[in-house]
Amino acid sequence: MSITFPRGFIANGIHSGVKKEGLDLGLLLSTCNASASGMFTTNQVKSPSVIITGERLKSGLLRGIIANSGCANACVGRQGFIDAEYILDRLGGILGEDPKLLGIASTGVIGKRLPMEKIIEKLPILADGLSREGGTLFERAIMTTDRVVKEVKTSFFYNGTDIRIGACAKGSGMIHPNMATLLSFITTDLNIDHRLLKIVLKSSIDASLNAVTIDKDMSTNDSVIIMANGMSGNIEIRDEREKGFLLFRDALKDVMVEIAKKIARDGEGASKLIEVEVTGTEDEAQAIRMARAVAGSNLFKSAVWGKEINWGRIISALGANSDPFDSDRISIYFGDVKVVENGIEVEFDKNMVLKILDGKEVLIRISVGDGSGRGKAWGCDLTPEYVYINGSYLS
Amino acid sequence: MSITFPRGFIANGIHSGVKKEGLDLGLLLSTCNASASGMFTTNQVKSPSVIITGERLKSGLLRGIIANSGCANACVGRQGFIDAEYILDRLGGILGEDPKLLGIASTGVIGKRLPMEKIIEKLPILADGLSREGGTLFERAIMTTDRVVKEVKTSFFYNGTDIRIGACAKGSGMIHPNMATLLSFITTDLNIDHRLLKIVLKSSIDASLNAVTIDKDMSTNDSVIIMANGMSGNIEIRDEREKGFLLFRDALKDVMVEIAKKIARDGEGASKLIEVEVTGTEDEAQAIRMARAVAGSNLFKSAVWGKEINWGRIISALGANSDPFDSDRISIYFGDVKVVENGIEVEFDKNMVLKILDGKEVLIRISVGDGSGRGKAWGCDLTPEYVYINGSYLS
Repeated sequence: MSITFPRGFIANGIHSGVKKEGLDLGLLLSTCNASASGMFTTNQVKSPSVIITGERLKSGLLRGIIANSGCANACVGRQGFIDAEYILDRLGGILGEDPKLLGIASTGVIGKRLPMEKIIEKLPILADGLSREGGTLFERAIMTTDRVVKEVKTSFFYNGTDIRIGACAKGSGMIHPNMATLLSFITTDLNIDHRLLKIVLKSSIDASLNAVTIDKDMSTNDSVIIMANGMSGNIEIRDEREKGFLLFRDALKDVMVEIAKKIARDGEGASKLIEVEVTGTEDEAQAIRMARAVAGSNLFKSAVWGKEINWGRIISALGANSDPFDSDRISIYFGDVKVVENGIEVEFDKNMVLKILDGKEVLIRISVGDGSGRGKAWGCDLTPEYVYINGSYLS
Repeated sequence: MSITFPRGFIANGIHSGVKKEGLDLGLLLSTCNASASGMFTTNQVKSPSVIITGERLKSGLLRGIIANSGCANACVGRQGFIDAEYILDRLGGILGEDPKLLGIASTGVIGKRLPMEKIIEKLPILADGLSREGGTLFERAIMTTDRVVKEVKTSFFYNGTDIRIGACAKGSGMIHPNMATLLSFITTDLNIDHRLLKIVLKSSIDASLNAVTIDKDMSTNDSVIIMANGMSGNIEIRDEREKGFLLFRDALKDVMVEIAKKIARDGEGASKLIEVEVTGTEDEAQAIRMARAVAGSNLFKSAVWGKEINWGRIISALGANSDPFDSDRISIYFGDVKVVENGIEVEFDKNMVLKILDGKEVLIRISVGDGSGRGKAWGCDLTPEYVYINGSYLS
């Protein structure tokens, strides 16, 4: 129940009937208004849930979020907006809160309306059961094809107290349109201005969730929402140079990198986590782009599944990406074993590399030059199981 | 033996030892110098075979092409250039032709040198066996994981005679780096200026091979080469407005669309051809881009394999592409059955659509607006077999 680890957050999760079985409706609430910010899918087609929540976050304030799995509330025309707003209005009434301070996130099948009667009927039960312990239920209620709950918590000492951060996510793929993919929620009891929250959220997501790739598809519903309710009692952080800001930035990045790895490890059908680190680029962003190009190559992912030392696919994937590099200067390591130097295969211990490919985490390190930039991306192997899952999602 | 269907082309294919077994070395020769043009991979990392042939084509003239399968001659440093040029020099000597009029194309594993001794030893046998009938052997010698030979021929009447066009290709994926992918060769006995040949090649490839997508990866070796030797005896075509040019343009496009479909149908592990047609765009290029975004979505491809009517993945794939459209105006047809209108699912005969998904060719038609643009793209379903093939390519 990481999501309710920070002070002043309560949550719940129930089965409402959006899915045939299992938890499918969650509620996360702060006991006071929280600074808030969000990042959403860049798909041109966005779920009304995404659009409405994005609009409401412009105030920089949020009290709570309702999230459902099983239905994306996308591609259902104007009705999708009416349904989402009605749920939030009714929920506001039940909670005695301003509905404009509530957000909604949805994930599941595209093109089907939310089962409104079932959801509305269950709202009182959902609200009644809010508790700190309910964090676990919330974390489970947002899952679709996920095999495991993805949650991380941490704390750091600042201003005489421990500042707590909690996060959870669902999403077997970063980018599964029909699964309508990645939802992530982050809570903290830090007191911080919402403009700074926005900055720190973006930098942490760029180096974590935005560096994950499962299948290059992109959802209509990807949403990451952070709430900071200030319950730890520190004086509001308003400057990027404050020590509290720097501590928070680093802690949040660590949390989200852990979440990113959990998502990649649990990629649909995945049997292994692939971590690709690129060094020697001009900056971190370039390194992440290049690392992601490798982590996202179907061919390389298939080779990892098949435990093949197929470094040619790494160079090919880098070349198909648009960041320039000199293939004659590239070095490639599988784990700690150097396989390629100056663009050419060197002698290496094949059995050692096969052992690395046999593990649950395969680390690929690529040096492309002398620059100081470095960055990581995460993905998973492509397995026959991925096809089975996505070939029978509606069934 | 389509490739030797036009007058004045002879060919051969043999086993030289690049691959463990099967034909792996082919030679295609015109009996006189031919106008020629080529299009090559845009991967930053290019095989020396690609770079050398591209350089030689700048003269607009070519006499012959040697092609090998099993080794991409890529990522082997400077040696790749030395090896390719040595093969061409020796071949020129054997044929008694200027080596500068010979090109080379390679496909296969990246990072391994060409087995030079084996190839050089077999060059005389390769040249000795050149014949019109040898076209079939050439077409087979370029295959890697291809299950079937891909060849098309046609002719049209112009200037008192039949102008013949032949084409062949290999490539289970447009874009398989390590398979070092798509090679295609086109021959014609038309007499045409090489500058016009370049124009007509580009327009036909943009609407055919460049509209195929198997797995979004891109090879270091993709090459398409056309040779026009003028043996049909027409006066050289030098103007885009000439009737002969227009007839040739249309015929070549038809040939290359057939080749594109053959490649998609034989995509690695594929069980079905997927044809996506987009209408109502501003122009053809936009329609092709949008169609290709759908044909290339792992999720949609998996759904087709699993015979699921998952139109949400179509809209999601379009939204993840950068061409703007209004999702509230979109209509989607599976075959002739309308499933979505104005962005919302309509009532339709589910059994009829399931029957369409059960066929060997699945046609998806998408109307996005009132524009006059229309275009098609081709792909294949994503199957567990794809992963098996690419997880054991080196073995």
